[in-house]
Amino acid sequence: MLTIGVDIGGTKVSAGVVDENGAIVEQALRKTPADRPDLIAETVADVVRELAEGRDIEAVGVGAAGFVDESRSVVRFAPNLAWREEPLQKKISGMVGLPVVIENDANAMAWGETRFGAGRGQSHIVCLTVGTGIGGGLVFDGALFRGHWGMAAELGHMQVVPDGRPCGCGQRGCWEQYASGNALVMEARLIAEEQPERAGILLGLAGGKIEGEEVTEAARQGDEASLAAFASLADWLGQGMADLAAILDPGCFIVGGGVCRASDLFLDRAREAFTRRLTGRGHRPLPEIRLAELGANAGMVGAADLARHR
Amino acid sequence: MLTIGVDIGGTKVSAGVVDENGAIVEQALRKTPADRPDLIAETVADVVRELAEGRDIEAVGVGAAGFVDESRSVVRFAPNLAWREEPLQKKISGMVGLPVVIENDANAMAWGETRFGAGRGQSHIVCLTVGTGIGGGLVFDGALFRGHWGMAAELGHMQVVPDGRPCGCGQRGCWEQYASGNALVMEARLIAEEQPERAGILLGLAGGKIEGEEVTEAARQGDEASLAAFASLADWLGQGMADLAAILDPGCFIVGGGVCRASDLFLDRAREAFTRRLTGRGHRPLPEIRLAELGANAGMVGAADLARHR
Amino acid sequence: MLTIGVDIGGTKVSAGVVDENGAIVEQALRKTPADRPDLIAETVADVVRELAEGRDIEAVGVGAAGFVDESRSVVRFAPNLAWREEPLQKKISGMVGLPVVIENDANAMAWGETRFGAGRGQSHIVCLTVGTGIGGGLVFDGALFRGHWGMAAELGHMQVVPDGRPCGCGQRGCWEQYASGNALVMEARLIAEEQPERAGILLGLAGGKIEGEEVTEAARQGDEASLAAFASLADWLGQGMADLAAILDPGCFIVGGGVCRASDLFLDRAREAFTRRLTGRGHRPLPEIRLAELGANAGMVGAADLARHR
Amino acid sequence: MLTIGVDIGGTKVSAGVVDENGAIVEQALRKTPADRPDLIAETVADVVRELAEGRDIEAVGVGAAGFVDESRSVVRFAPNLAWREEPLQKKISGMVGLPVVIENDANAMAWGETRFGAGRGQSHIVCLTVGTGIGGGLVFDGALFRGHWGMAAELGHMQVVPDGRPCGCGQRGCWEQYASGNALVMEARLIAEEQPERAGILLGLAGGKIEGEEVTEAARQGDEASLAAFASLADWLGQGMADLAAILDPGCFIVGGGVCRASDLFLDRAREAFTRRLTGRGHRPLPEIRLAELGANAGMVGAADLARHR
Repeated sequence: MLTIGVDIGGTKVSAGVVDENGAIVEQALRKTPADRPDLIAETVADVVRELAEGRDIEAVGVGAAGFVDESRSVVRFAPNLAWREEPLQKKISGMVGLPVVIENDANAMAWGETRFGAGRGQSHIVCLTVGTGIGGGLVFDGALFRGHWGMAAELGHMQVVPDGRPCGCGQRGCWEQYASGNALVMEARLIAEEQPERAGILLGLAGGKIEGEEVTEAARQGDEASLAAFASLADWLGQGMADLAAILDPGCFIVGGGVCRASDLFLDRAREAFTRRLTGRGHRPLPEIRLAELGANAGMVGAADLARHR
Repeated sequence: MLTIGVDIGGTKVSAGVVDENGAIVEQALRKTPADRPDLIAETVADVVRELAEGRDIEAVGVGAAGFVDESRSVVRFAPNLAWREEPLQKKISGMVGLPVVIENDANAMAWGETRFGAGRGQSHIVCLTVGTGIGGGLVFDGALFRGHWGMAAELGHMQVVPDGRPCGCGQRGCWEQYASGNALVMEARLIAEEQPERAGILLGLAGGKIEGEEVTEAARQGDEASLAAFASLADWLGQGMADLAAILDPGCFIVGGGVCRASDLFLDRAREAFTRRLTGRGHRPLPEIRLAELGANAGMVGAADLARHR
Repeated sequence: MLTIGVDIGGTKVSAGVVDENGAIVEQALRKTPADRPDLIAETVADVVRELAEGRDIEAVGVGAAGFVDESRSVVRFAPNLAWREEPLQKKISGMVGLPVVIENDANAMAWGETRFGAGRGQSHIVCLTVGTGIGGGLVFDGALFRGHWGMAAELGHMQVVPDGRPCGCGQRGCWEQYASGNALVMEARLIAEEQPERAGILLGLAGGKIEGEEVTEAARQGDEASLAAFASLADWLGQGMADLAAILDPGCFIVGGGVCRASDLFLDRAREAFTRRLTGRGHRPLPEIRLAELGANAGMVGAADLARHR
Repeated sequence: MLTIGVDIGGTKVSAGVVDENGAIVEQALRKTPADRPDLIAETVADVVRELAEGRDIEAVGVGAAGFVDESRSVVRFAPNLAWREEPLQKKISGMVGLPVVIENDANAMAWGETRFGAGRGQSHIVCLTVGTGIGGGLVFDGALFRGHWGMAAELGHMQVVPDGRPCGCGQRGCWEQYASGNALVMEARLIAEEQPERAGILLGLAGGKIEGEEVTEAARQGDEASLAAFASLADWLGQGMADLAAILDPGCFIVGGGVCRASDLFLDRAREAFTRRLTGRGHRPLPEIRLAELGANAGMVGAADLARHR
């Protein structure tokens, strides 16, 4: 039987009909009404109705950025949307007449990769989504781990530098301020501004404004500042994974997210840093560090599967 | 039916016959032959035989400091004893003719507290043993969490200060270098050496050598240096717990270990630091931070119960 | 008798005829040919000829950003212009037929303030020019201190954070990365990006791009992020001045530069931080921390006076 | 004509009759009455009288640890003795009937080295005395630099690590907490305690208590922990000298003090670290870094010469 998975992003809502093998039968897109969060449930319902038309759909799984409660019904707090205690499950379920499960988007991605992507055959997984920030998902004994109140796996918000850079979460020195796409760009900008002689290629490519794509392209062309920014990203990724391995001893890490389009520029170095910084190294097996396989659809597919096994 | 729990410490081996309610029926002690690790199994067998005499014993649980493998049979590496790939289960089982389960000592303590101590009624627990270092135990969904290779919960070895103090694990900047009994004493010694005018009471009490007891007593008498050392301990404890809550979202923390005899000197401040440093604070429930209840017997009782439910 | 002072800035060359009391008799301006550093000497000569016309001029003093050699003739290295071993004195002197003295621009400003501004009556002065970076000038026993090779007083390049932010000088963690106008803007931008709810006023004022003026105006209107950025600036200014006082024990500090137009937003707090962080505080007199008085003309007037007393 | 130099140390008062070439004609010693600071002046007077007997003495120079006022008469504050506003010059002069000059002990050493030791022929010198802490002396234009109130050159108290190790001066993170003999021993002790497998030689030599001599000897024998401690000392020495060069641009550094008996174990590395961390490197001459030459007598000889040229 089929389920529908929905991934609510900051700019678009993407949805798909997914079968029990994780195959996407049909997809549809909507723009996210980001300035009208009260309309998001309606947008989701709309795209679900379109996809459900003429099909036998068992349930709907919805991935959304934010702290989702332990009953998987309510988004308690979303940093990038104006939701506070938003009863998303009830709203959508009422509109579409189907069972609905809400899940944190990084959890949904982690689950998609676990079931149908890089995590197949693994039962203890730490999944990292390295995009503008760092999202996390944990799979223990083959099940998604949500913690006591559904808010586990905010991996990007371990503090790694005391009194470090300010973070969107209100704290300072969080991991995602040093090991995310934003961190990569920030580091490259700082070096380019202060040491332009090391950033000739980058400044040539970027014109006025340095973004991630220019840093990646410049690094590929040998730009010293861009390579230094990737090296910093890699070292911090490795350090944070070593911290997580000390705590969780996973069988593997899965690293995905937009920054991984440039994984050739940092992943090997991140592995080395991880190995060097792992507590007890030499006396324990090393977990694999794998690239995610499902790309942008991981969250949708994962949400659909979570709805199936709700 | 009864089981026997054994706790192998650096100086003594303590064992007890434990019933299904966690009650200790009888206890016995041996000195740890610390310089002859090859004799430890024999010592354990000896005390087990004594206790088992005339009783119907179902199984034996043994808690030992070190990395225990996922089959709970072999101590792969013990930082304080000369064990490397020590097949402790096979050895002891062969000597006593009973089923034997080996467990990391901090895990055994965590389990003891979970079943019969401060963790009763909780299913998602982070347990900290704050002694010379920091030991950790994790309970998820009511079961001890061991990770993929049995080495999870080395909580004291998250890095909290980049390039910080050297740690016994070979890395630098580990949490236990800032939030343990050793850290407390080190901080007090540094202040006393450099700013003796703030450490008059402490220096008066300690004579030549400052240890934990003198720091505690001096703090109780208002010694400024000792109070500063406890404040530092509390702030770092709170910060590390905030990191763990970001990752694990536990329902409660249990804090035990020798340093907790002075919990009145740091636990309230640690709670405040935790609350202040928690990511997403204000939008999520706060886990309780509870004192351990079973004291020095937690490990023995936990090991015995793990043997029962092996 | 009169001398001419010239201040070569990144965008304009400003020159003035100055009498022995530091009074400016006449002024003139030229655009700096920043992309043609070989033409700068000519530009200076041109404006000097214009001002010298019909006057009896004794000598010319020129302030320029860069490392000036101990004979005050050659700019060995200029971070912002393409000069390397530029024989500026010889060039200009040859063109205008007058004695010429070259001086580092921050030194010239320090001397101007010492002779005719905030430093009158003081003989041991540390002068800070807080603009995009931090420039420094030292006056000991009433004379400008140049060090052995003429390169002293690069005060902005003390390291204050190990492995800190990259600096234009090629090192990391330099003071000017934490206590300059650039640092102020960078801190405000980081907070605004990560914690926009604290930066509502600033984001409203700045539109797309946050610069120093918006941070200042927003701070005046109570913007939390902007006030935090000024607080950070103040604390780091105070800390660095405390370091300099440990080394140099000056009778006073003079703080000038563009950021001081907002001195009401940070100077009192900087004084407090200085006092709190001063080694031996309580057992030594406190140097005054004064605002510069001559504004943008300090460098020109200082250079003119250095030419008089060459 | 002859003068007498006196060096008041924590354990002994050493004095000598010195000629105009810095040659010591005769020496004498007394124990420092450290617990009776009121008796120190008398002890100094006593040894001066002994040495002056039958000689024509022009004046007496006295070096003492502490903040000496700008008139070189009063010790305002001594961290290691109970002096506060101690009128040492008046007391001693009254007892011996000779002109007396008081000087900070590190200043006296710097002056001794400048006139008769490693600093001959140099006019801009930064002198470091690396012992339990770091003492400093500055020579500019061939004269001792005292600052406005006589308290300059407290070089050990620049902050190099924000919120770092507590310092005897009441602040945190001071240079001498990272680059002194005490820092060397502290670092070696920490590594030996936490990573004893790297400190086998050191622990074998030291028995119970690790002190500087054991660290030096163990490093010579290849002990890994001791070598790491010397490497850390060297890197921090180099960094601090780079900071001082940015500010003062000296023609040379002189490095002395007890730790220099092991200069073969750190000085080359300190030079490399200095060169790597110097702002503007590649565009400026490098000051020499020289070893002190006068050993333990530098302070006495310097004080005697300061008395001659009072």
